[in-house]
Amino acid sequence: MTDSFHMTSAEFRRHGHALVDWVAQHMDRVAELPVQSSTEPGEVRALLPCAAPEDPEPFESLLRDLDDVVLPGITQWQSPGWFAYFPANTSPPSILAELATAALGAQGMLWSTSPAVTEIESHVLDWLVDLLGLPQAWKTSVGPGGGVIQMSASDCTHVAHVVARQLAVDRGACTDDVVAYSSSQAHSSIEKGARVAAIRHVRLIDVDERFALRPASLEAAIEQDLVDGLVPAIVTSAIGTTATAAVDPVEAVATIAQRHGIWHHVDAAYAGSAMICPEFRVHQQGAERADSYVFNAHKWMFTNFDCSVFWVADRAPLIRTMSILPPYLQNAASASGDVIDYRDWHVPLGRRFRALKLWWVLRSLGARGIRHHIREHVRLAQQFATWVDGNPALARTAPLSFGLVCFRHVDGNDATSTLADAINRTGHVYVTPSTIGEQRFIRVSVGATATTARDVERLWRVILEAL
Amino acid sequence: MTDSFHMTSAEFRRHGHALVDWVAQHMDRVAELPVQSSTEPGEVRALLPCAAPEDPEPFESLLRDLDDVVLPGITQWQSPGWFAYFPANTSPPSILAELATAALGAQGMLWSTSPAVTEIESHVLDWLVDLLGLPQAWKTSVGPGGGVIQMSASDCTHVAHVVARQLAVDRGACTDDVVAYSSSQAHSSIEKGARVAAIRHVRLIDVDERFALRPASLEAAIEQDLVDGLVPAIVTSAIGTTATAAVDPVEAVATIAQRHGIWHHVDAAYAGSAMICPEFRVHQQGAERADSYVFNAHKWMFTNFDCSVFWVADRAPLIRTMSILPPYLQNAASASGDVIDYRDWHVPLGRRFRALKLWWVLRSLGARGIRHHIREHVRLAQQFATWVDGNPALARTAPLSFGLVCFRHVDGNDATSTLADAINRTGHVYVTPSTIGEQRFIRVSVGATATTARDVERLWRVILEAL
Repeated sequence: MTDSFHMTSAEFRRHGHALVDWVAQHMDRVAELPVQSSTEPGEVRALLPCAAPEDPEPFESLLRDLDDVVLPGITQWQSPGWFAYFPANTSPPSILAELATAALGAQGMLWSTSPAVTEIESHVLDWLVDLLGLPQAWKTSVGPGGGVIQMSASDCTHVAHVVARQLAVDRGACTDDVVAYSSSQAHSSIEKGARVAAIRHVRLIDVDERFALRPASLEAAIEQDLVDGLVPAIVTSAIGTTATAAVDPVEAVATIAQRHGIWHHVDAAYAGSAMICPEFRVHQQGAERADSYVFNAHKWMFTNFDCSVFWVADRAPLIRTMSILPPYLQNAASASGDVIDYRDWHVPLGRRFRALKLWWVLRSLGARGIRHHIREHVRLAQQFATWVDGNPALARTAPLSFGLVCFRHVDGNDATSTLADAINRTGHVYVTPSTIGEQRFIRVSVGATATTARDVERLWRVILEAL
Repeated sequence: MTDSFHMTSAEFRRHGHALVDWVAQHMDRVAELPVQSSTEPGEVRALLPCAAPEDPEPFESLLRDLDDVVLPGITQWQSPGWFAYFPANTSPPSILAELATAALGAQGMLWSTSPAVTEIESHVLDWLVDLLGLPQAWKTSVGPGGGVIQMSASDCTHVAHVVARQLAVDRGACTDDVVAYSSSQAHSSIEKGARVAAIRHVRLIDVDERFALRPASLEAAIEQDLVDGLVPAIVTSAIGTTATAAVDPVEAVATIAQRHGIWHHVDAAYAGSAMICPEFRVHQQGAERADSYVFNAHKWMFTNFDCSVFWVADRAPLIRTMSILPPYLQNAASASGDVIDYRDWHVPLGRRFRALKLWWVLRSLGARGIRHHIREHVRLAQQFATWVDGNPALARTAPLSFGLVCFRHVDGNDATSTLADAINRTGHVYVTPSTIGEQRFIRVSVGATATTARDVERLWRVILEAL
């Protein structure tokens, strides 16, 4: 046997234990680290050698650099003081599942290349159909729909646009005439997904005072495009927009989409996780008539990125659009039609065993545990909103929605920006300033795995001190 | 404080150690597991409860199900007897880095959301420019090009097609007139990427006796499309096709692409890793004139999926095509122009800290270690090829290329299929049967992390017994 540069299993065991200890210690101290990295551009790179090492380095050096090079350049999305953007949660069972997934190193592009990767994914997504109150027909075991894990909501939304465009082109449309719709408050991934999918016409429909899409405006835009000889192909409803977590009138959009025979995609990237609590499902009424639905378990369901779940009501047009079968991928199982080959459900061919972490999170917390933590986050957001409402220097700029509170300083934009900067400068908590139109406001998103009442109280004290 | 359903750091430490031990044990026993799962469709799902658990389960149950439910349904891509498809390697430092990445749970969509995620990625990809002998201008630190990690070569190739289409449309083309080219032996991701990108015309150019694209045929196809009023936009050269690892004449394609002003994408998904050894770089002559280049570190560079590296010679058209900047993503660092925001380099917005594993693999093995193992795989493939050549029952069907040996049974297709089935039925080794035209053949791809001379000898004994 020739020399090997690879770690032996004994070395792996020793280094693995050391790294697990490092992570456990990190969990304990993350609350004390500055949430936002204060690194300047180029500072991390300046710590790295100009060229790759020619000779092997001991694992101890790699571990040391986690503290010396990496951590100062990390913004701590897992801090209990994380109130910025939306959560991008991880949790212990999810972290451990990633270790197992990497160690198994299995590819799930076809059922046959590792049946467990496909079957556990299909099965766990069927569980989620029930947990989130979605239609039975979206289960792969019931059909004709089905669910698949993709990397991000951007990927899922892009795929929805590709399928809708293809359906329009199959019916004789010119690609350049295809039109996509969403509200002006929808996530940028819709405009981007449409553009990437070669949809040149994207209509951003105006919103009401709650920042929700106006159905009459959508209807009017579609009618105008039809008059102009264009081809309306897809509309996206948001359940939880990025700026304010606003909820579009999904039911009304569904009716308009069905009347015109266009694809209806529901973007519940953030708020979808909350549907595990029945009291929030009023916000997704009408989604059962949608053609596709995305929610990010990697946002608020304690399953780390990447784990974006995409359901289609009918998998046939998706697979027809995405499937290409070269000789080297042909196999008896695929030919039988008895199995799902997830490579036909998205752009990438190779795929990781991402369902393992979702399965482990659901089992480790139980549905009850997930409901408990989501309800607790919402309760804390409500609590925080009452404090804001009781303070004469502050005014809310949007209705409380799920775990998101939006507010401004009553003295206007400059005072609001100054307040946001002061909050973030403390280092213990982190919020996102944003704008709608000319109005600046501060987003406080309660939802990080580690966030408790104590952390929301700390945020409020920081705000009071900064006012 | 309310009750928590989350593991404490002490519980994480205990379960983490147990899982590390499980992985170390798996490394020791994977050689003895059947390479190919013999699970029947539905068998894994039948082991799972119909509904998600309402109550939490102990971690011990999850770990037990790794053995009882998961492993029997896994095809062991990390087995030393893996000679199927191409390798999809992992290695100990890569596995450990995935644990750290999941634990940090940082998002690298913008430089500002975790500077280390972006800077280590940019820096390590600059290292790789030197390691693989690629142009200095492809370094982000030199420019105008740069590298980015994406999920898969399919994603990178799709993005290349989107950018090329956009450039054509910006110059006035109708989307439906855009044309893409590759050889008939190119990977299916090219046809798929083009189709997803709304490129309706894909020309699969014929190949020579070595399965490499014929430049004269490419030139003729472009000329014909121009005569027909279509708009040639992109051609892909393969360095290592999927069926036979054939190498297209990159230099000749580069000349044709430049003459017609069309995007030239190089797909070195499999063979790119070998370019760390200077003796293989003769195969990528001309790639320095390409517009984009993809190689999968997750195939043959011991860095587990997903880690597909995409370089562009000029990042401006890529960013122009992919960038959308809503208010909630605006920040001072982005506005300064001093930083890279990788969200503008691909479809997804969120992104994991995938550079950590690549950094750890390069440091743990050293460039010398990676070269050693790739050369050893190629040496073993050469050794195997001489055995095939010396056996009158077997005939090679393509030139040896990198670590891939293609051969058939001299008695024809049925005998070849029978041989492949007999090899795979043993369970200790696993090869991929394929076809080109009417000819069936067997692919033996030497390149798994754990494969040594002993395993190739075992494969050969299995073949001799099966003949």
